[in-house]
Amino acid sequence: MSGERRATVPINVGGVVIGGAAPISVQSMTKTQTEDVAATLREIEAAAEAGADIMRVTCDTKEAGTALKEIVKGSPLPLVADIHYDAPLALMALEAGVACLRLNPGNITDADKVKDIAAEAKARGVPIRIGVNSGSIPGRKDIARGRGESIDETVDRMVAAALHHIRILEELDFRAIKVSLKASDVLTTVRANRAFAALGNRYPLHLGLTEAGPPETGSIKSAMALGILLAEGIGDTIRVSLVAPPPLEVKVGKEILANLQPAQSRPNLIACPTCGRLEINMVPMVQKVEAALQRVKRPITVSVMGCVVNGPGEGMHADMGIAGGRQKGIFYKHGKVVATLPEEELLATLLHELDVIAEEDAALIEAGKPLPVGLGDS
Amino acid sequence: MSGERRATVPINVGGVVIGGAAPISVQSMTKTQTEDVAATLREIEAAAEAGADIMRVTCDTKEAGTALKEIVKGSPLPLVADIHYDAPLALMALEAGVACLRLNPGNITDADKVKDIAAEAKARGVPIRIGVNSGSIPGRKDIARGRGESIDETVDRMVAAALHHIRILEELDFRAIKVSLKASDVLTTVRANRAFAALGNRYPLHLGLTEAGPPETGSIKSAMALGILLAEGIGDTIRVSLVAPPPLEVKVGKEILANLQPAQSRPNLIACPTCGRLEINMVPMVQKVEAALQRVKRPITVSVMGCVVNGPGEGMHADMGIAGGRQKGIFYKHGKVVATLPEEELLATLLHELDVIAEEDAALIEAGKPLPVGLGDS
Repeated sequence: MSGERRATVPINVGGVVIGGAAPISVQSMTKTQTEDVAATLREIEAAAEAGADIMRVTCDTKEAGTALKEIVKGSPLPLVADIHYDAPLALMALEAGVACLRLNPGNITDADKVKDIAAEAKARGVPIRIGVNSGSIPGRKDIARGRGESIDETVDRMVAAALHHIRILEELDFRAIKVSLKASDVLTTVRANRAFAALGNRYPLHLGLTEAGPPETGSIKSAMALGILLAEGIGDTIRVSLVAPPPLEVKVGKEILANLQPAQSRPNLIACPTCGRLEINMVPMVQKVEAALQRVKRPITVSVMGCVVNGPGEGMHADMGIAGGRQKGIFYKHGKVVATLPEEELLATLLHELDVIAEEDAALIEAGKPLPVGLGDS
Repeated sequence: MSGERRATVPINVGGVVIGGAAPISVQSMTKTQTEDVAATLREIEAAAEAGADIMRVTCDTKEAGTALKEIVKGSPLPLVADIHYDAPLALMALEAGVACLRLNPGNITDADKVKDIAAEAKARGVPIRIGVNSGSIPGRKDIARGRGESIDETVDRMVAAALHHIRILEELDFRAIKVSLKASDVLTTVRANRAFAALGNRYPLHLGLTEAGPPETGSIKSAMALGILLAEGIGDTIRVSLVAPPPLEVKVGKEILANLQPAQSRPNLIACPTCGRLEINMVPMVQKVEAALQRVKRPITVSVMGCVVNGPGEGMHADMGIAGGRQKGIFYKHGKVVATLPEEELLATLLHELDVIAEEDAALIEAGKPLPVGLGDS
């Protein structure tokens, strides 16, 4: 967008490349008890359908470690096992065939065990994510866990913790590493990742906030932190963490990435915010068009405008759209009014056109043919 | 955050200063028919309660112009009249006592009428917002309204349009100007505002997207565009435009601004995203705590953690909070466990503590006394 993308050495998480010139991937995490194989697989499948590239699964008990074996077999996506302090669980997860570990080696006190894990991960081609969270890093004893600490001090401690964990793996000649530096607020997260990116090493960055909160506010926080960093060229994979099911985390993550692409490269809906000039009932219309647009794959822009003041002006640079009026409205395509229609036919006409395009797109994808840009011949 | 705030000459919109060192204000726009005075005032009041600083009202008919007089009288907030092409309506709005006009003088063909409006606005101390939207600016004839145009070309046309309107007012020696450059996508909006900010003039910027869409995706778009720009020091007042009632636009706007302040300066909720380790039913808990926190005014951080793995570690740097467990959980304050409680008492205990603080805050504000940072003596 503005910053050149930070140069990194890519790692491979079960076929999904992270870093280098690879597209930025979207991750989520299961919220089930990992021991419950069926429930966990259902969540992974739902996330995959929503477009997730990678899923993380906690591995916090032996039963979870055992369950992982079956989960890996059934999963449509590469899995990352989340390990906290327990070396045997890390080895179980590797044996289960996970594609990545999230593990802070400095948290495992027995150096020999870290050596075993690194050797086993290396043999299997499994990378490790070092995940530093602002709330759980060693702090100075005289400040009670971050209270009274400045953002700069927190950032310094986060970066130092990341480097400490990295060094342990580097000394074992393990370099298939990605790193995350997460805080629960935008400023600390942005500054910590900027500080890490400025160090000049080439480990890919996994971006996210910890405990971002409920969907409404958590989406805003995540969009800001990830938006600011990605716009600066920082970040190679993202996870939006919400108090919500994984598919919503994925949807928000994909929306963030889409907004950093030119609107011309993807299906795009514009809708006026409704105002005093509003002459048709917009909200349900917009929702229906948004749903129909989900099935369209080619990059087109569709506009739904409540009135004719902004309508023809601001809506007509869309590929197609509708604008309301008193009792009747207009349907436009390629910047030209195609039809003036009674209000009750406006929406149906647009939805029908979108259906036709969605079917064409599905057929083209099925046939392995490229999608047209804009309406094509439609 | 990182960029120094762009230097601007402040303007005054009915007592709300925009630009200079003034805090960034939050605006919204009524979605009623302006002719309906009662409905419009209800919307303005709802927006004021949600924390709006300024409201915009469309003025698109003579009846709206007449209604504005009563709306201005009844409004708790300064009002901006949205004028499109109609000079007499601009004069009516000024006579009605609005605090600002949104008007692109180049859209009014009769130069004498622009002169009248500028003279009347100046006499009344009313500033003018020049509002350029990507969809409604003059374009090259050979490209159909932006189709096939690159972002750079759109940005150039937007900035040129803004400068054209500015020049008309400057020639009339009118300089109480703010400017907006809005597109319906993040990239164009960010680049247009960066390009304008780089010109070196000192007019404050009003940030927003046009037709950002439904709340879920519109919040994300707005958070990204405004977040990126504000983090660079660009922007003096914001409007989040959603297909939703004004209070939601205001809530999202205020949330965006809050996220650019250090978490230490405001009440802040952190909640873990729930995962396989989840042992208490988080979502309704988080919603209740969020609601209770609305009434707290002092800057405290409250955490609600689903389990004890992240709980004590990541939650305990909050001022207070709860972390779940099997059947029972902990309530902590100042980084120390205060009580181990049965699950059913956890939430009630935290809500009670927040109520006590909210009452203290209300009493302190009533008495004109400063609020403590963190828990204070509680």
